[in-house]
Amino acid sequence: MIDHTHDPAASSWVEGADTHADFPVQNLPLGVFSTAGTAPRTGIAIGDHVLDPSAVAPLLRGKGDAALAAIDGARTLNPLFALEPAARRELRHAVFALLTDKDHVAQCQAALIPAAQCTMHLPLAVRDYTDFYAGIHHARNVGSLLRPDNPLLPNYRYIPVGYHGRASSIRVSGGEVRRPSGQLRAPDSGVPAVGQSRRLDYEVEIGFWIGGQSELGDPVPIGRAASRIAGLCLLNDWSARDIQAWEYQPLGPFLAKNFGTTVSPWVITAEALAPFRVAQPHRPDGDPSPLPYLNDEGDQQAGALALRIDVSLRTRKMRDAGIEPVRLGRTEATNLYWTPAQLVAHHTVNGCDLAAGDLLGSGTISGAEDDAYGSLMEMSRGGTRSITLPGGETRTFLEDGDEVVLTGTANSNGFRSIGLGECRATIAPAR
Amino acid sequence: MIDHTHDPAASSWVEGADTHADFPVQNLPLGVFSTAGTAPRTGIAIGDHVLDPSAVAPLLRGKGDAALAAIDGARTLNPLFALEPAARRELRHAVFALLTDKDHVAQCQAALIPAAQCTMHLPLAVRDYTDFYAGIHHARNVGSLLRPDNPLLPNYRYIPVGYHGRASSIRVSGGEVRRPSGQLRAPDSGVPAVGQSRRLDYEVEIGFWIGGQSELGDPVPIGRAASRIAGLCLLNDWSARDIQAWEYQPLGPFLAKNFGTTVSPWVITAEALAPFRVAQPHRPDGDPSPLPYLNDEGDQQAGALALRIDVSLRTRKMRDAGIEPVRLGRTEATNLYWTPAQLVAHHTVNGCDLAAGDLLGSGTISGAEDDAYGSLMEMSRGGTRSITLPGGETRTFLEDGDEVVLTGTANSNGFRSIGLGECRATIAPAR
Repeated sequence: MIDHTHDPAASSWVEGADTHADFPVQNLPLGVFSTAGTAPRTGIAIGDHVLDPSAVAPLLRGKGDAALAAIDGARTLNPLFALEPAARRELRHAVFALLTDKDHVAQCQAALIPAAQCTMHLPLAVRDYTDFYAGIHHARNVGSLLRPDNPLLPNYRYIPVGYHGRASSIRVSGGEVRRPSGQLRAPDSGVPAVGQSRRLDYEVEIGFWIGGQSELGDPVPIGRAASRIAGLCLLNDWSARDIQAWEYQPLGPFLAKNFGTTVSPWVITAEALAPFRVAQPHRPDGDPSPLPYLNDEGDQQAGALALRIDVSLRTRKMRDAGIEPVRLGRTEATNLYWTPAQLVAHHTVNGCDLAAGDLLGSGTISGAEDDAYGSLMEMSRGGTRSITLPGGETRTFLEDGDEVVLTGTANSNGFRSIGLGECRATIAPAR
Repeated sequence: MIDHTHDPAASSWVEGADTHADFPVQNLPLGVFSTAGTAPRTGIAIGDHVLDPSAVAPLLRGKGDAALAAIDGARTLNPLFALEPAARRELRHAVFALLTDKDHVAQCQAALIPAAQCTMHLPLAVRDYTDFYAGIHHARNVGSLLRPDNPLLPNYRYIPVGYHGRASSIRVSGGEVRRPSGQLRAPDSGVPAVGQSRRLDYEVEIGFWIGGQSELGDPVPIGRAASRIAGLCLLNDWSARDIQAWEYQPLGPFLAKNFGTTVSPWVITAEALAPFRVAQPHRPDGDPSPLPYLNDEGDQQAGALALRIDVSLRTRKMRDAGIEPVRLGRTEATNLYWTPAQLVAHHTVNGCDLAAGDLLGSGTISGAEDDAYGSLMEMSRGGTRSITLPGGETRTFLEDGDEVVLTGTANSNGFRSIGLGECRATIAPAR
């Protein structure tokens, strides 16, 4: 699985790429960008630049032709992600060669655009969006607020619990999320009223972008499920806890979630992530083994991800005072109880079809400790404890003007770390 | 609202249209069809024929140009439904004139294709699919199986409860639905196993096709919500009750539903349905008034629909013996506790965007009586009573080879009844 594109000693001639925290040449994430007056098109991040692969097609020496054909004229990555992984791997290798070989520096310059001049777009047209609940600490923390005696429901350790989310309201990092209004019921009242959400929250998640196509009626076996994850992003599953509490029985969250979801613009590819695959953490004694359709030795040994994710907050006052976002939580993807392959195998065991453009959210990833929580609901113990911020402000939930930033890094001994870019948005006041 | 296209005395020169149960000239539903060797394109049903409106464009005398431009070359109705209702109304009037005026009989013949020669396609590319739970008798019946003392949850009479469903597995009438497998837990066991669903069910619903576009962050006020329903169809929300029972806590139905949803091919337009708008039935004494954002006098007086829907079943044995499908239930759309406009207003109160191609399911529509149930779960009292069929077979849930057919009719005194076509599919055995 590991190839020379993961060599930590590999160096790119693109200025600043070797020291870039997120996008050295070992990463090469895919996205969709535009510059002033041009149409959105596929880009590859390298350091502080974006490479337009179509513009260097002649330099790729016939390598990556299938991928380049899929990119040509496309405003989304959907056609590229509809291909088999081999096509994306070939493009990666060709681009890696180009950006590490100094022979083509001059010819490449016109195809390298400073990232600061690029507008990033949603990388894929989202087809169906599914959100899972695979962060076991989050499930236990939230469950204990609702059901202190029985925080995890009986199905949790058997089923990768998930539900369908709203595809149309997914937006790329960098914009605003408007505070939703809806039915709210005060704890001391039997009767709801309509108002602005006062318990607006973020949720720290990873989004898995699906590649390929399976037909309706055809389950994806666990042994082939990992190959259906084309890449991943950071995902913020904004949640209105007060709307959620009143609406979610018996059919699950709806208006509490579907007003907006933010994703990071760069798809970190499965190929780039290969060195960061790790064993799924051992299940605690007493937990059942995964049922056969979820159980694959290779997946158990290398199906999880060594990813660290940080969530930071900056209030309007902090921004005005020039204070950087403050980190509220730092968590690891190994806190997920299920691997991405298990999510895919479960999603399709009934024959549900998956195709390029489908997006799977991991569910909120919290760690076990206070400083590793992936939501304010957990940090504030359901709104009962405030969090003090630099400058002395306090929060239990988000206020208008608050900016939430997710960042992430993949780390593994002996390999160059790669970053996930950022997933950032600011709360706009309700209409 | 009522215009001459609803005149019950109007007569079409198309042979058999005036006596056709579903598609007289007062209906003119929209769909997407193809014939051998041709691309899918927009059609309008008239009697036992399909009119290709693009093929008669020159005869429409400049009427309906915006709609005709949206249809031109389109393989789905999405571009047409993105227009304002006025554009579809103008096309309706122009086609009505053409099909009732004998001057153009000869010129139209080439554009009229026998329905038997047409393959029908999914009429719109489904963007997001939301399924509601607005059938109060169904909610009470199912709730009483789960919670005999408290069948309706406290939010039911305040919130049009809904959740997001799977868009990718929606198929047009006429095909097969494969029996799903999944995690099942026997009632006497704490531990689940994987197997084929043994409690496969249908659900009788209406699907509302959205028109127009609202932006993220912009609620649709109740007074304008009805205009966002471009038309409706019959919808069968296939459900695996055993998968559902084990998986649905706490985030709602997922694999129990997303293996397949079947819709009827013809979109009965809002314009055709105008004569069949009726008052929303009076809420029982003690029920709360709708909250202000759901409360509109016009909607209360004419926001509900006078639609009767039948569900019929034919087993493989019945088919082999030449026995017609037997009706299991007959229900009325006035059993819905919420109007379509209320569903739209609720869906967008938090700023969620709605656009052409979005599909809203009503939720299962059951009546109060045994012969008016919209699911086998209700008819069989959770699988405890069998239903006897012609030929002596019995059912609690669906068996392989069973064919389920939904049909529907809009009726109103003084108007010509119009039909909804049919929504039909057959259960294929699990893989």
